[in-house]
Amino acid sequence: MHTETITTINDEATGIPVEMNITAFLSAAECNAQSEMSLPLLTQKLIDAATAHANALHVGYEDLVKDNTGWVLSRISIEMTRYPAINEDYSITTWVEGFNRRFSARNFMISDSKGDVIGYVRSIWVAIDFATRRPVDLSVFEDRIIPSSRQCPIATMPRLANIENPERVVDHHFSFCDIDFNRHVNSARYVETILNQWDVAFYDRNIASRFDIVFLAEIHFDDEVKIAVKQDSEGVFDVALAKVNTGFSVATRARLSFSPR
Amino acid sequence: MHTETITTINDEATGIPVEMNITAFLSAAECNAQSEMSLPLLTQKLIDAATAHANALHVGYEDLVKDNTGWVLSRISIEMTRYPAINEDYSITTWVEGFNRRFSARNFMISDSKGDVIGYVRSIWVAIDFATRRPVDLSVFEDRIIPSSRQCPIATMPRLANIENPERVVDHHFSFCDIDFNRHVNSARYVETILNQWDVAFYDRNIASRFDIVFLAEIHFDDEVKIAVKQDSEGVFDVALAKVNTGFSVATRARLSFSPR
Repeated sequence: MHTETITTINDEATGIPVEMNITAFLSAAECNAQSEMSLPLLTQKLIDAATAHANALHVGYEDLVKDNTGWVLSRISIEMTRYPAINEDYSITTWVEGFNRRFSARNFMISDSKGDVIGYVRSIWVAIDFATRRPVDLSVFEDRIIPSSRQCPIATMPRLANIENPERVVDHHFSFCDIDFNRHVNSARYVETILNQWDVAFYDRNIASRFDIVFLAEIHFDDEVKIAVKQDSEGVFDVALAKVNTGFSVATRARLSFSPR
Repeated sequence: MHTETITTINDEATGIPVEMNITAFLSAAECNAQSEMSLPLLTQKLIDAATAHANALHVGYEDLVKDNTGWVLSRISIEMTRYPAINEDYSITTWVEGFNRRFSARNFMISDSKGDVIGYVRSIWVAIDFATRRPVDLSVFEDRIIPSSRQCPIATMPRLANIENPERVVDHHFSFCDIDFNRHVNSARYVETILNQWDVAFYDRNIASRFDIVFLAEIHFDDEVKIAVKQDSEGVFDVALAKVNTGFSVATRARLSFSPR
């Protein structure tokens, strides 16, 4: 069992941790069929890193829950040249790029055991009031967060529109183990469900080089879900999960680009 | 992010770690719909603890892979009075009860944040030669392992027989994300698939107080699977996963007892 090492880069004047770096080891038990870190696990590790940095900034779960508020991941864009491999040390560096009253932009850099950068991630977070489900004004956090000037050289999320004339539409029902303590489908399980639209042989030939996902509505255990998939002329796939029982309201949209191995 | 604390109790004469204890924190992100540790996650944590102790005993992955051999979990019996709760520290203690030429019996004790015991686990492991898929003679490890005299007060695994006249039989197809680096379905995903035979409302009313599972054959991505479920007169459920495409060969059998909350 390998423990994680967490370090921060702090602002000299205030001591505020501007960046956090988490170095960890990818065990065999954590790997997918291609003996590398899966995209759902990477998503979970990014959320964990964001949580740890928010805690260190005193804007974490325990700080927000006092006001009955909490962070919600709104969208995430992941661009990888390769994924951490079996029995490899890797590190995740995270920082806040900026924030306004409505949302916080948090970026990530993923490095391999040699220190070479293998990916970047952009994410957008909002804080909501659990009672009203309405966004909270983030300007109250102004004195606790210092954005980093570190660059994130990947494009921001494209606008993901409705899928017209999908090539495939399949029915899906989430299971007991997909539901988390919020009583809705876990973010990482959305990612899994999208990746599961392709088979093992496809991933033997291709890696997901870019993945964009926007979370629009929660899916609950009893929701009937349809998954639509469409490939554009450049080989980019759009995927949407819609809830049949709520008038086909779209719960999530995603876009995937694959590269041959 | 909370790091794990690992301690061992060592044999005075040889320094061999007879017991290993891992203390960890159950984060919100790890919790199921009932805001507690799920049985699949507990199973994974037990496998991780077994792996860590085997490494410390110099009978771990890196020691065995030199001879192209490795440990395989054959069966596990988990008995819990309650599960670790959200934001709670818990600890897993593991030790070898005994071993012979064919298998190793490894036990676990799970304690809560106050140090009270909340569960015990029995497991049986074999080591196999990856080339021949045949068991390896474990007597070569005799000088590296010292069994602990710590008691494990739960029953050994009952014999799980064929399910005659099942009440329910459902079709199942495993997905890309269920397959691990061994190219077959991950052990924790077998456990998930079995628990997924009940809905969220059932788990709101009941906890899985005893869970026995025996792993008989590997399930691969392309296997067509049927899941059979039967309840006996005392409310105990038997579940089996059979592979249709290999003449209904049974891949795993499990038995579950539930207690009202």
